[in-house]
Amino acid sequence: MAAALYFVGLDVGGTTMKAAVVDGNGKTFPSVALRTNPERGQDAGIDTMGETIRQAIAAAKLTLADIAAIGVATPGLMDIHAGLILDPPNLKPWKNVPVRDRIAALFGKPTAFQNDANAAAFGEKWTGAGRGAHSMVMFTLGTGVGGGIIVGDAIIEGKHSHGGELGHLRIDRPDCGRLCGCGARGCLEAYASATAVTCRAREEMASWRGSTTLKQFYTANDDDLTAKVIFDLARAGDACATKVVDDTAYCLALGACAAIAAIDPEVIVFGGGVTDAGEWFRAKIDADVRRFGLPFPVESVRIVFAELGSDAGFIGAAACAKLLVPR
Amino acid sequence: MAAALYFVGLDVGGTTMKAAVVDGNGKTFPSVALRTNPERGQDAGIDTMGETIRQAIAAAKLTLADIAAIGVATPGLMDIHAGLILDPPNLKPWKNVPVRDRIAALFGKPTAFQNDANAAAFGEKWTGAGRGAHSMVMFTLGTGVGGGIIVGDAIIEGKHSHGGELGHLRIDRPDCGRLCGCGARGCLEAYASATAVTCRAREEMASWRGSTTLKQFYTANDDDLTAKVIFDLARAGDACATKVVDDTAYCLALGACAAIAAIDPEVIVFGGGVTDAGEWFRAKIDADVRRFGLPFPVESVRIVFAELGSDAGFIGAAACAKLLVPR
Repeated sequence: MAAALYFVGLDVGGTTMKAAVVDGNGKTFPSVALRTNPERGQDAGIDTMGETIRQAIAAAKLTLADIAAIGVATPGLMDIHAGLILDPPNLKPWKNVPVRDRIAALFGKPTAFQNDANAAAFGEKWTGAGRGAHSMVMFTLGTGVGGGIIVGDAIIEGKHSHGGELGHLRIDRPDCGRLCGCGARGCLEAYASATAVTCRAREEMASWRGSTTLKQFYTANDDDLTAKVIFDLARAGDACATKVVDDTAYCLALGACAAIAAIDPEVIVFGGGVTDAGEWFRAKIDADVRRFGLPFPVESVRIVFAELGSDAGFIGAAACAKLLVPR
Repeated sequence: MAAALYFVGLDVGGTTMKAAVVDGNGKTFPSVALRTNPERGQDAGIDTMGETIRQAIAAAKLTLADIAAIGVATPGLMDIHAGLILDPPNLKPWKNVPVRDRIAALFGKPTAFQNDANAAAFGEKWTGAGRGAHSMVMFTLGTGVGGGIIVGDAIIEGKHSHGGELGHLRIDRPDCGRLCGCGARGCLEAYASATAVTCRAREEMASWRGSTTLKQFYTANDDDLTAKVIFDLARAGDACATKVVDDTAYCLALGACAAIAAIDPEVIVFGGGVTDAGEWFRAKIDADVRRFGLPFPVESVRIVFAELGSDAGFIGAAACAKLLVPR
């Protein structure tokens, strides 16, 4: 038996960054989180990354000498291959930060660099909802819709680090579909992000005939309307909210069907806020995938919810670090 | 320098099967073709495969002893991993044929087995339109629309051997889009296959105001209407035919945009009959990809036509054989 190998995974978000040590079998030690404060600039950001990594190692009661490699995940835009943050909207004003080389220099360890949505998918594949599968496609639902595609041990990173940008799979026509943040129409993100769900709910209740508790949000409390409220009302039987949730499941299923036609994965994972909705919502998506997907694959593709929550990113970053070390 | 390695690639189609020897650098020797005659049954089919391979070796002025490995590509349905033809519509009445093992036993050589569209993509990646690229997505346009996705040295085969079924990427709504042979609505194949192009042309000319040479096909000569005729008339300036071709380019571009969102490949290749249409048609697709695709990747993704014609399948099959031999 080789000595146990330890990896640090760091997931940098716009608000907080989170890190933990993960061993070679995917066992995760206690995680730590620090505020990102991107507005303090990128040098301060690199310092905070270093501090988060150090605290994670301490939280595992280990020392730097125990660590075989480090993995860092950040939001895009980025150049994964070059180890470079380019111009990510969530980390303004950072620009062209050679994260991989700076962290490698700081700790003197092999360092991996990855997109955060790809890392989350890789984490779920290693120790979460996709474990044991050969191939996996993951949709991550939040303010936007992200994604990651894993085939075997390989993340589909893409030529321009845009592999697995599944929020921009088109589920409606580019001439009349909903307008997406990317400037195009009909993207999945324009229907199934948390923002898009509340937007669709507002439209639905505006024209809804009959009673719906949603209408209490129509005027005074408009800003309190969240995707969670809509899902809770749907589960409680509100017909208008149910329509919005059904439509959301349908849109996600169409995204999944596109992933099936391209990748034909063993498992499709949905992560992010919606997974709180539980089996009831998963079953809706599942039914629409069976109905609208490619006949042979949909007989057995598995549709599941993510299991690792917000830990998926640093676990996946650690999995990327693990790939750097010869087995 | 190691001794030169030679591989045989065999591409089995519903009408003919084609094979040639390819060396380790992708140099192709003269090819041979025999009729498939699937109606004679699968044992006769295996015999014909064997004969085609033998003739290909003879055509290269080599002997079986010179051959390092064999690759066989067939149309689906299939189980690539198991080396098995399942129940392909184009090879009726063949069913559950263990092609890989039977060819391996026949020649005593390592034998690879692959889907024909995947093999064509792999061939283009090795020595054709995708050479030198790290990642490539290929759409093959014919009676249907097939596809193949290559990332690095890996073909995205899929869990159920349905990876790269790009004809079933949806480019329109599943409730009101065109009906596809797979039973669903809105699939790319239902718009951009040769059959679909002629079908759209018939609809277009039926409601066309103004003159169009296409109308000569409307009654008596209906069966003579082919995709080629439509493309030729469009190139000659016929407005109605041009509309049909423009729409075809638009549909193909939407398929390419989905591939970009999922894979973000370095190059997207279109193969099959349409490539005869030339640069004029490629430029139409290219323009729509830039217009409707994900902003960052479309700045530099290359949209090209295939270069190997009907040789792509056996060249790709040989490339699969090459992967079996340690370098």
